[in-house]
Amino acid sequence: MPRMTILTEAELRRILPLDRDATTCVEDAFLALATCPVAMPPILRLDIPDHAGGSGGEVDVKTAYVPGLDGFAIKISPGFFGNPALGLPSVNGLMVLLSSRTGLVECLLLDNGYLTDVRTAAAGAVAARHLSRPDSAVATIFGAGVQAALQLEALTLVRPIREARLWARQPERAAATAARLSDWLGIPVHAVADGRAAVAGADIVVTTTPAERPILMADWLEPGQHVTAMGSDAEHKNELDPAVFDRAILYVADSLKQTRRLGELHHAISAGAVAADRDFPELGAVIAGQAAGRTAPDAITVCDLTGTGVQDTAIATLARSRALAAGAGTIFDA
Amino acid sequence: MPRMTILTEAELRRILPLDRDATTCVEDAFLALATCPVAMPPILRLDIPDHAGGSGGEVDVKTAYVPGLDGFAIKISPGFFGNPALGLPSVNGLMVLLSSRTGLVECLLLDNGYLTDVRTAAAGAVAARHLSRPDSAVATIFGAGVQAALQLEALTLVRPIREARLWARQPERAAATAARLSDWLGIPVHAVADGRAAVAGADIVVTTTPAERPILMADWLEPGQHVTAMGSDAEHKNELDPAVFDRAILYVADSLKQTRRLGELHHAISAGAVAADRDFPELGAVIAGQAAGRTAPDAITVCDLTGTGVQDTAIATLARSRALAAGAGTIFDA
Repeated sequence: MPRMTILTEAELRRILPLDRDATTCVEDAFLALATCPVAMPPILRLDIPDHAGGSGGEVDVKTAYVPGLDGFAIKISPGFFGNPALGLPSVNGLMVLLSSRTGLVECLLLDNGYLTDVRTAAAGAVAARHLSRPDSAVATIFGAGVQAALQLEALTLVRPIREARLWARQPERAAATAARLSDWLGIPVHAVADGRAAVAGADIVVTTTPAERPILMADWLEPGQHVTAMGSDAEHKNELDPAVFDRAILYVADSLKQTRRLGELHHAISAGAVAADRDFPELGAVIAGQAAGRTAPDAITVCDLTGTGVQDTAIATLARSRALAAGAGTIFDA
Repeated sequence: MPRMTILTEAELRRILPLDRDATTCVEDAFLALATCPVAMPPILRLDIPDHAGGSGGEVDVKTAYVPGLDGFAIKISPGFFGNPALGLPSVNGLMVLLSSRTGLVECLLLDNGYLTDVRTAAAGAVAARHLSRPDSAVATIFGAGVQAALQLEALTLVRPIREARLWARQPERAAATAARLSDWLGIPVHAVADGRAAVAGADIVVTTTPAERPILMADWLEPGQHVTAMGSDAEHKNELDPAVFDRAILYVADSLKQTRRLGELHHAISAGAVAADRDFPELGAVIAGQAAGRTAPDAITVCDLTGTGVQDTAIATLARSRALAAGAGTIFDA
């Protein structure tokens, strides 16, 4: 009778906040992706039509096996965008952690998407650690949602951020989120109504929106800036002006296979700004020292994050070890 | 806070035995596959190499949305074939049932593969109901595992089976399984050492083995027989002599897309016995009356089952309604 540990979102929030260990485990996952025979099959995607009684939705299933980790995660991520009208969250889901040795289910991580939030923010920290200037002090965030807050928090773990700006389509939301973040992080966070003004003088810019048209223009960028675009994880999403590719000295993908299909690179290729077969380094190769990262203080760097199964496996494995250490969770005999 | 119901294998065995409802729900699922815009993406497959500390394994993830059902299942099926040496089952896993309306997780079905066993056997009953002679009384089973027993039991639900024969590679295992089944089903079940002799005079033959070379020869078949081959669910598995296609008046696939790649059809095409582009009906079309089933008492019919996501969604939905009716399961707030 297999014995598994069930962890709820509340338990996971308690034992696994966004912290340095979380960024390190995600960094190690990207390193493995570049240096080990990781198995990461294409995402399984199911579309539910709106005649199912709701407004329709989609489910992504991601997985990856990372050599050296004794477990691997299978993540089920539903997104039903009519849910808020029903008083329900649009994104939820869970992760299942299985043993790499036996395939037995070890943990059910009923996180409602929380671990995805953490591993996504952690990837932003990893990108900043390897691509931004070490003295980066001013951060600009596009967006006012969960990732806007978490990405800023993630930057504070790896760079001496002392000031932040926040731009969002809805100014009131931007102001509210800025005030909350200022309070939470203990640094001044200002809502800025004009995107160009928000970017001027920043050291790091992170875009975290579901935009379908560019919100960050190429001619706003200044020497020495690093940009992380993490909003796009689907074909129709696009945050960066394709001309950014003419300005960026260095473009880095989390997974080139994915960013060619789902990320900012996809739109730059479609717009004719980048040749379809042009090669770019991946974040793991930069971490491993196989590819150059930032080579000069005045370089403009861009990291395109679409989200990878190795991050899920990494964070799920960390969740299990934290749960063991804390004695958290409910043991269940199936 | 999403509220879900967790059901263990023991609870599922109690509330959802292989019965007529189970075969009907699987029949309805095949009907939907033929008549509704079912969404059934390709199987997600992850291979775990043996250097993970065990003997290696594989995980399949299947899903399907069936219009009219208010839930859909995502099934995680690991197979680690070195597990028996560790005292563990080689196949296990679980199903997650989500709402078609909101994507919220409604049930965790910790079935260790039990529901797959039931829905697979139910498909055998459906095939027999639509393709075998109504007066079929003698059944022959190839194999001595879980499916050997369940497929025979399934036949007894839909045909007046009064005698069965059982062939398996290991004669002692065949004898033990035959004795157990005879006791369980209350009909004579004989272990037969010679495959040809086991088939002679049978009305229905079901192959349930993991064979990689044909175990059922074309020249053993007699007019009026129906064959269901359900063992092959992977490229390298093969139970039927490709020449069976020359003898069968009617070949029916559960999913033609799958049997061309994973089933007996795949091997018949490779062997040159069948043209790669030859068209065949699917089981759902036969159920719907869109394609002819058995047209004469002396026809030889063959049904090739590889296992489909619609069966998983159907059985998971039935499990939920049974659990509700029985008040079974543990409620969990995630």
